[in-house]
Amino acid sequence: MVLFTLGQLLLIEAALLLLPTLVAVLYKENTVLHFLAAAGISAFIGGALMLVFRKRNNVIFAKEGFAIVSLSWLSLSAVGALPFFFSKEIPSYVDAFFETVSGFTTTGASILTNVEALSKGILFWRSFTHWVGGMGVLVFIMAILPTVSDRSIHIMRAEVPGPIVGKLVPRAKDTARVLYLIYVALTVIQIVLLLFGGMDLFESIVHSFGTAGTGGFGVKADSIGGYSDYCQWVITVFMVLFGLNFNLYYLLLIRRFKSVLRNTELWVYLGILAFSITVITLNIRSMYTTSADAIRYSAFQVASIMSTTGYSTVNFDLWPGLSKAVLLILMFLGSCAGSTAGGLKLSRIILLFKMVRNELRHLMAPRSVNSVKVDGKQVDQSIQKNAVNYFVLFMFIFSAIFLVLSFEPYSFETNFSATAACINNVGPGFGAVGPAESFAGYSPLSKIVLSFAMLFGRLELFPMILLFSPSLWRKK
Amino acid sequence: MVLFTLGQLLLIEAALLLLPTLVAVLYKENTVLHFLAAAGISAFIGGALMLVFRKRNNVIFAKEGFAIVSLSWLSLSAVGALPFFFSKEIPSYVDAFFETVSGFTTTGASILTNVEALSKGILFWRSFTHWVGGMGVLVFIMAILPTVSDRSIHIMRAEVPGPIVGKLVPRAKDTARVLYLIYVALTVIQIVLLLFGGMDLFESIVHSFGTAGTGGFGVKADSIGGYSDYCQWVITVFMVLFGLNFNLYYLLLIRRFKSVLRNTELWVYLGILAFSITVITLNIRSMYTTSADAIRYSAFQVASIMSTTGYSTVNFDLWPGLSKAVLLILMFLGSCAGSTAGGLKLSRIILLFKMVRNELRHLMAPRSVNSVKVDGKQVDQSIQKNAVNYFVLFMFIFSAIFLVLSFEPYSFETNFSATAACINNVGPGFGAVGPAESFAGYSPLSKIVLSFAMLFGRLELFPMILLFSPSLWRKK
Repeated sequence: MVLFTLGQLLLIEAALLLLPTLVAVLYKENTVLHFLAAAGISAFIGGALMLVFRKRNNVIFAKEGFAIVSLSWLSLSAVGALPFFFSKEIPSYVDAFFETVSGFTTTGASILTNVEALSKGILFWRSFTHWVGGMGVLVFIMAILPTVSDRSIHIMRAEVPGPIVGKLVPRAKDTARVLYLIYVALTVIQIVLLLFGGMDLFESIVHSFGTAGTGGFGVKADSIGGYSDYCQWVITVFMVLFGLNFNLYYLLLIRRFKSVLRNTELWVYLGILAFSITVITLNIRSMYTTSADAIRYSAFQVASIMSTTGYSTVNFDLWPGLSKAVLLILMFLGSCAGSTAGGLKLSRIILLFKMVRNELRHLMAPRSVNSVKVDGKQVDQSIQKNAVNYFVLFMFIFSAIFLVLSFEPYSFETNFSATAACINNVGPGFGAVGPAESFAGYSPLSKIVLSFAMLFGRLELFPMILLFSPSLWRKK
Repeated sequence: MVLFTLGQLLLIEAALLLLPTLVAVLYKENTVLHFLAAAGISAFIGGALMLVFRKRNNVIFAKEGFAIVSLSWLSLSAVGALPFFFSKEIPSYVDAFFETVSGFTTTGASILTNVEALSKGILFWRSFTHWVGGMGVLVFIMAILPTVSDRSIHIMRAEVPGPIVGKLVPRAKDTARVLYLIYVALTVIQIVLLLFGGMDLFESIVHSFGTAGTGGFGVKADSIGGYSDYCQWVITVFMVLFGLNFNLYYLLLIRRFKSVLRNTELWVYLGILAFSITVITLNIRSMYTTSADAIRYSAFQVASIMSTTGYSTVNFDLWPGLSKAVLLILMFLGSCAGSTAGGLKLSRIILLFKMVRNELRHLMAPRSVNSVKVDGKQVDQSIQKNAVNYFVLFMFIFSAIFLVLSFEPYSFETNFSATAACINNVGPGFGAVGPAESFAGYSPLSKIVLSFAMLFGRLELFPMILLFSPSLWRKK
């Protein structure tokens, strides 16, 4: 069953690879053959897997859900790296794998030192991985294939970020469709708005993919810095929008405005955004000539880091320590659950905050009974447990990855922020992995470790951890 | 009741101040008057409080326990800072307060740029605060005063570190006595062993105080670096010993050897020590001429950081990134619960680790029921809850303090390690707060924030947090 789904997925990827092939044809580039080769390999393996494992039962339990998700993302990236490798635009396979994982996980960390040298087809594929990875590849399959059973909510749970995955509509399949429709609509609106700003079609599409997936791959060495103020503001607003829980858009569509306004996470998100923009604007004001510049740079960067996109308009690595500390903490917070963003997710932070407050109350008056409520509803014990265990596991894995990176001759700031930028799916960090630099200097071992960090972050730890657990492979 | 106990405490502190007075008399120093003045003030306030709040009920609830502990430590430090301030050996009161908090919390972070210029009396008081703070001031009161009620286990719970405070013997008071006896005995043995190594009596006492409290104040600019290999090894061994849970010594005394050997935390502690020493020895081997040197430096520093003492024999800030990353992680781990060390405590880490493993099992097989066991005993749900909430609150407070420190013009490494070194009660960090430097360069605001960080760490967050909670001050 797991391998059958894997086969389906690789067939889909073969189809997805035809899109950059088309771009390469349009621009008359010689990468056409490389894309076709990669699509062929993907289709062949996918087809073979589907044929061999045809006899299947439709039942997916939590265990199979996790296995499908983690294996899917690994094979998706392994195959997705082929065009980079075949075209020799990224000569090392480890580098190509890192770049592809960074794409699908919507991290945006790059090993490229000169992104402007890439061909259009490759640039398109690179940003397209963001768009595909943003909403989840398996959610995509669920949305389009008719055969998927209703137990597939387990897959959605494992792939959609956040502590609680609710079904918007009774069937998981329809929920996936609604989510994808909203996603497509928002992306199209952004493309149109960027076109209005004078950005050409290719770049509008690529940057909208990068924003929608909260990824951060661009086409210029200075990211978004060279575009007009209008375009920078459009991207700022859309980074904020893609950091919101998509359920809110659905609620808006069905005109349940009150439910939207009552959403705690929304207000916390907007509050933290406003607070961070204010602090950083004041902190960097003296570095720029006008207040308008300082506000634009600050707003863009806060939106970019908090939504874990990773675009930049200036080299924020040169900002003072306070601004960088605020950005670092935003990396860990991330945005709303149910968005395309990474990080710990605000709903989890809110839940943890309330749990701690509850514990303090309990310590003061041991006999009192308090329950934790979010949005007026009592939160189940098992969800609370899951949230704290997630937090603890996150810190453990973070420390382990940081420790491995410390073999590198880079500074503490570089290694620490590289780990944070990868596990939170942000992209650029500080120091030698700052926005004006790249991850090219890391050793192959570190690149593989960081690739796993990105997967850990995107799939929210558990599916990846279980992949390493022997009991997953044990037969019942 | 709370203020009465505070009065008792200040009287005790007045008595404690007579010891350094005696040292000053012996060395014919002019600080005698400064000590006497501080003792006088302490006795006066203490006596007044006891007289005014004489009418008291003996009942201490959790709430009062927390209030007593946090207020005690604050006033103890405020008064303990007076001799430094009066003698003008630390001219600024904020600096003197920082140094005293650092002493009582057994942190060992110093604002002194030239420690060798201090008089003997002041040096003695400085290290004596470590010894007093190590086992807890209130536990000390419990041990010696006859009037303390049996409900005072609440005080002990708040002052003795670790997730679970067990009574060794039926009455809390007797437990306190047993702990103090073990503490005194170990300190005396260390003094004698250091005397054998040729260290003079004054320095043997001062360094044993610093080791016993896992504090780290010394008398030399190069900490322990100038002493013989023998003395360095003695201190290494005793740092490890004072990082152990004192209950284990009690179990040894009553010959329950099996219980000692079955203690998970002990083996994890020794395992991490051995692993870290090995990694760092290999990592720094090429920096020193002989392997024996590398092993000694590595063992000393690992023991010093893991026990959160903070002594050093070399400038470990110059070590490669891997060694520093290992040391940084050890700062957060700390040693065993029920020791004088800081950090998160290993028993908490073990508990968190098992809880996460349990959650993973639960995700794989949602219908299975697993319980978390440590040392073969099932861990109560409320203790599990407390441990995770502690971890979450710790990370929140850590981030907040780091954010405030980022106003300083120091590097990321300096500010991050300064926060870690203070909240974990270690002492020196890296960069501008490394072992060869001091905290002198920080602004008064940062020094006060770091003083609170040390108190947060030493008192394990909750008592200090509740001090800021309005409900503590509300009458029933």
